[in-house]
Amino acid sequence: MPVYQDPEDGLVVEGEALRAWTADLARAIGTPPDIAADVAEILLDSDLRGIASHGTARLPQYVRLVEAGVLDPAARPVKERGKPALARFDARNGWGHHAGRVATDDAIARARELGAGISVVRNTNHYGIAGSYAMRAAREGLIGMSLTNTSPLVAPTRGRVPMLGTNPIAVAAPAGRFGMVVLDMATSTIPRGRIEVAARRHQKLPIGWAIGPDGSPATTPEEALEGSLLPLGGEESNAGYKGYGLALAVELLTGILGDAAFGPNIIGLFSTQGRSNLGQFFMAIDPASIDDQAAFVARLERLVDQLTHAPLIPNAPGPVLYPGQPEAERSALQSRRGIVIDREHHDSLVELGRRHGVGFPTARSLR
Amino acid sequence: MPVYQDPEDGLVVEGEALRAWTADLARAIGTPPDIAADVAEILLDSDLRGIASHGTARLPQYVRLVEAGVLDPAARPVKERGKPALARFDARNGWGHHAGRVATDDAIARARELGAGISVVRNTNHYGIAGSYAMRAAREGLIGMSLTNTSPLVAPTRGRVPMLGTNPIAVAAPAGRFGMVVLDMATSTIPRGRIEVAARRHQKLPIGWAIGPDGSPATTPEEALEGSLLPLGGEESNAGYKGYGLALAVELLTGILGDAAFGPNIIGLFSTQGRSNLGQFFMAIDPASIDDQAAFVARLERLVDQLTHAPLIPNAPGPVLYPGQPEAERSALQSRRGIVIDREHHDSLVELGRRHGVGFPTARSLR
Repeated sequence: MPVYQDPEDGLVVEGEALRAWTADLARAIGTPPDIAADVAEILLDSDLRGIASHGTARLPQYVRLVEAGVLDPAARPVKERGKPALARFDARNGWGHHAGRVATDDAIARARELGAGISVVRNTNHYGIAGSYAMRAAREGLIGMSLTNTSPLVAPTRGRVPMLGTNPIAVAAPAGRFGMVVLDMATSTIPRGRIEVAARRHQKLPIGWAIGPDGSPATTPEEALEGSLLPLGGEESNAGYKGYGLALAVELLTGILGDAAFGPNIIGLFSTQGRSNLGQFFMAIDPASIDDQAAFVARLERLVDQLTHAPLIPNAPGPVLYPGQPEAERSALQSRRGIVIDREHHDSLVELGRRHGVGFPTARSLR
Repeated sequence: MPVYQDPEDGLVVEGEALRAWTADLARAIGTPPDIAADVAEILLDSDLRGIASHGTARLPQYVRLVEAGVLDPAARPVKERGKPALARFDARNGWGHHAGRVATDDAIARARELGAGISVVRNTNHYGIAGSYAMRAAREGLIGMSLTNTSPLVAPTRGRVPMLGTNPIAVAAPAGRFGMVVLDMATSTIPRGRIEVAARRHQKLPIGWAIGPDGSPATTPEEALEGSLLPLGGEESNAGYKGYGLALAVELLTGILGDAAFGPNIIGLFSTQGRSNLGQFFMAIDPASIDDQAAFVARLERLVDQLTHAPLIPNAPGPVLYPGQPEAERSALQSRRGIVIDREHHDSLVELGRRHGVGFPTARSLR
């Protein structure tokens, strides 16, 4: 499980202040208020959970896309085609966070009626953490799932260059006294954001995370950023082809199914050279359509209870965790004491606010 | 990708003869003809594709379950509850292969009408390779997905004992001139069947596949069979918690959603001590409900074409493959020249046939 550590020179910003500022900033660049609220909520989900790579740290890049005319901040998704259980949306190149929220809510509504509902979205943009959309369904008592394709960063097994995105898989469900089980994972061994964080924090990389541009293992974030991430599993001998297969399955259900861009044809991450045209997949399954909802939750609660009480390997760093537990604990901590962000992240938001006349809230030093 | 090698002392059996014998044998122990045909078809799918661990090699174990009164060979699944897009079946403790085929066909029919259809099955048994059911949908032009929980064999990250099954994920789709893309993977680094094959072939295990009963790395199949498999990724430091999370997500959508047994509460693999009560999940998605079906296939074909022409790492053992390619090539080869099985596998089937008065077809030596 990822272990979240506060950066050495971290600054603390109060969560609600950061959310309000994010919405204000989005409005200042032409985003209607309801869409801005979706963007702020989903970016804050990420910051609260300690996933610094997918939250407000991305705002300068989103703003650059808007300013370059590549992302339309006022666009609203339209439901184009489909049948009752499978709908396709065109996000019309607007905020991915808003289209994702709309597509998720639509899938939830259809799941309540039909038992399950799927939305695929084309012509959309980076949508933050995939987990936000799955959690939205789980908060409503359903099983939620979300997938997205992303810019090519991962080399297929045996390949030397990036051909697939980190293509995350998120699945969430209500788990009684454990809150929610939330799996939210890149299908690469690690997400690129983790490498960017390592670069900001001047950390080395373990072997098996990435290859350099010549196809040999990358040991520094810089080599990895010029090369390719490896799929989950790493080398072929360690079943890295399974991570590659999962990334391809995500591509199948997003870009290929949704008629969006796919694989090596997607433009670079946050490039202003063209539209992203990402594809995304949202599914909601209503357990209440085949069982008592409380009985479903009780079974998941029991399984999590059993897992978290498992006997441990020698020198285990702690108990067995359930997916989403470290992030939920981080979120609870940061809801109380404020969100810790890197100084570089902080300074980039202060500057962004200054440029758009939206003063960044006061931050205090962590130490 | 798994590389299939013929065993040193392999014997060759003609595929159609093995299929007919398998159906005859199933009938001889009380299976109605149509159910026996499903069992034979799905076991042969596995043998043809070179997945020796999930095909007819399992027949002696299935027969033992029937003879112990633990599996009812004549039981027919019933649709219990549900809404149009999500149905729950009770397999009534019959053959998993038959219930899986029925549940898949039902999901396909609903997908054609609604865009997507899901079946969950409870009170069922081991169903062979998950890929069979996903391929069944793909042959019809749809995206197919199948998941099953299985007996506890995998330790959760940090855990010392098996708490979750190898819980496979299968996804398949039609891919034009490439046939089908078929991802069919255990969420452990390797399936237990691979360890059993290694034991039969007296091979050692690489580090990272499994731990022994004390929680330290297993280097022999025997240690691994007494200990636990590791989830995909392996150690925690190599993101093994992602494989653990995937196994848990499969459990969520099978045993937990379907109200079957789950996690550590499932009895041992092929144990005659009680009913398996496995949970399984089948989904079909019809791309034609949101797009021209041929356009969907053309996109997947193009992606596979791009992937299989990717530049290679130094010393790559061959080109980039697509998921299911080695198995499809193995299947084509074995359809022509016959299916190669281990001598031990062969002898166990000859003995099984002798006991039930169904003579095993003549096999020839491979060399």
